[in-house]
Amino acid sequence: MSSFKKFKIALCQMKVINDKQSNIRKAKEIIEIACSNYKPELVILPEYFNCPVGLGYTENYAEEESNSQSLAMLSEVAKRNKINLIGGYLPIKDGNKFYNTSYCFDRTGTIKARHRKNHLFDIDIPGKISYQESATLSPGKNFTVFDTDVAKIGIGICYDIRFPEYAHILKKNYGIEMLVYPAAFNTVTGPMHWELLHRSRALDNNVFLAICSPARNTENSNVYQCYGYSSVDNPFGKIIATTEQDECIIEAEIDKSLIKDISEQIPTWKQKRIDMYDVINKL
Amino acid sequence: MSSFKKFKIALCQMKVINDKQSNIRKAKEIIEIACSNYKPELVILPEYFNCPVGLGYTENYAEEESNSQSLAMLSEVAKRNKINLIGGYLPIKDGNKFYNTSYCFDRTGTIKARHRKNHLFDIDIPGKISYQESATLSPGKNFTVFDTDVAKIGIGICYDIRFPEYAHILKKNYGIEMLVYPAAFNTVTGPMHWELLHRSRALDNNVFLAICSPARNTENSNVYQCYGYSSVDNPFGKIIATTEQDECIIEAEIDKSLIKDISEQIPTWKQKRIDMYDVINKL
Repeated sequence: MSSFKKFKIALCQMKVINDKQSNIRKAKEIIEIACSNYKPELVILPEYFNCPVGLGYTENYAEEESNSQSLAMLSEVAKRNKINLIGGYLPIKDGNKFYNTSYCFDRTGTIKARHRKNHLFDIDIPGKISYQESATLSPGKNFTVFDTDVAKIGIGICYDIRFPEYAHILKKNYGIEMLVYPAAFNTVTGPMHWELLHRSRALDNNVFLAICSPARNTENSNVYQCYGYSSVDNPFGKIIATTEQDECIIEAEIDKSLIKDISEQIPTWKQKRIDMYDVINKL
Repeated sequence: MSSFKKFKIALCQMKVINDKQSNIRKAKEIIEIACSNYKPELVILPEYFNCPVGLGYTENYAEEESNSQSLAMLSEVAKRNKINLIGGYLPIKDGNKFYNTSYCFDRTGTIKARHRKNHLFDIDIPGKISYQESATLSPGKNFTVFDTDVAKIGIGICYDIRFPEYAHILKKNYGIEMLVYPAAFNTVTGPMHWELLHRSRALDNNVFLAICSPARNTENSNVYQCYGYSSVDNPFGKIIATTEQDECIIEAEIDKSLIKDISEQIPTWKQKRIDMYDVINKL
């Protein structure tokens, strides 16, 4: 358990376009603005921060971890601003496979955790949206914890949030205090499920939760329309910071005493009937 | 799997007072009205339909299953109207213990399932609400399925809804198509969590869900204030019928094809990473 009882976070809901260099510059700029304006201990980028959502972009945008311009930028900016930083999706090439990966940097710019998305976004809602992320990307197989000086943070990416078991194991076996999901829902699944999913994962696990989306690209209706609505929830499942679809930075103060409050007031985690059921970690 | 593809249900959000005979009469009346007006295949009463919420009432209101006026009424009214009927809470005495129990009757008036609340309502939100249901009641230890001619229904009672594992096992191991929770949240926990919990249990498990509360007793502010807001959700987690706090009957049509729709469109139950985690039934 870290010594921070309260800390500030910033979520960068940046607009991503079909120009990698421009996206990397924008990400750097928006992190700098967040740090300068708000002095956060933790900054979060969205999923797909350097690459538009779309199967056709993977190969062109992919980098190898050992030689990545995007990771070099993230490391440098984390170190210079002395922040914990979660750099949402960038397609990472490993051998002949590609992974939807989030990287977690400490205040020295060192990679402390990497999360490869476990559950790929394969859905088919006729007439509305069809997407097969598994056509170009491979799934990870990891329970990912970013153990920072401010909190123990569980990491998932986007579609991972639809699987309560993953968040449950992060809470039960790893003692996380917060969940962070870089994510990129769309204008079909966003209105249906975005808020319901993130608030219920926060409440069911009695943890803070931050979910960070790219801004919507409203100028080009031919591209994947990200939902936006980046949000932060407290452990009671209450939204404490949110926004709509446009580019912006949202800020929140995390008061960790609320985790103790809910676990005493509505103590479901002490009341679980593990004589009847359990959620098990098979890794 | 039953042959019904669509069927109608009615939820009786009745007001409960400190008079058992009056509550039993009211329950009978409201079921008759629901049947007469809407011809439902399934009728649901709230938790605490024959007894006000409060620890002091248990002993006076309790009945034994073998000699229960409340169960006799439910059986008779189910049989006469040829309905499936879920009669929410009545305190049932078994030896020297008391259980918060829901009974499920088929169209012949026969008891087909009984659910004893597994998770007792022990919470303490300072200055707002404190309740220790375990002071007078004992917990059940059961996964309860009411296998009707219209659908396979998993039964929980109120606080059971805060435990995702219970609903998950009912879906995974018993193949339920619907969850029914007789429930009696209050004006503190209701606004915070009622909708979030019922919608997320429906969505996460891709099942229909009905949650039925007593009406609020607004004339007497000294008694436990039930939340109301009885609701029905479809398997996409969308509310398809709801109300506010007053006494009423809500009706909904259950179109079971939606279960197939979500399981094909957003197929999370086929995508679960059972190589990484699992939820296990220990009974």
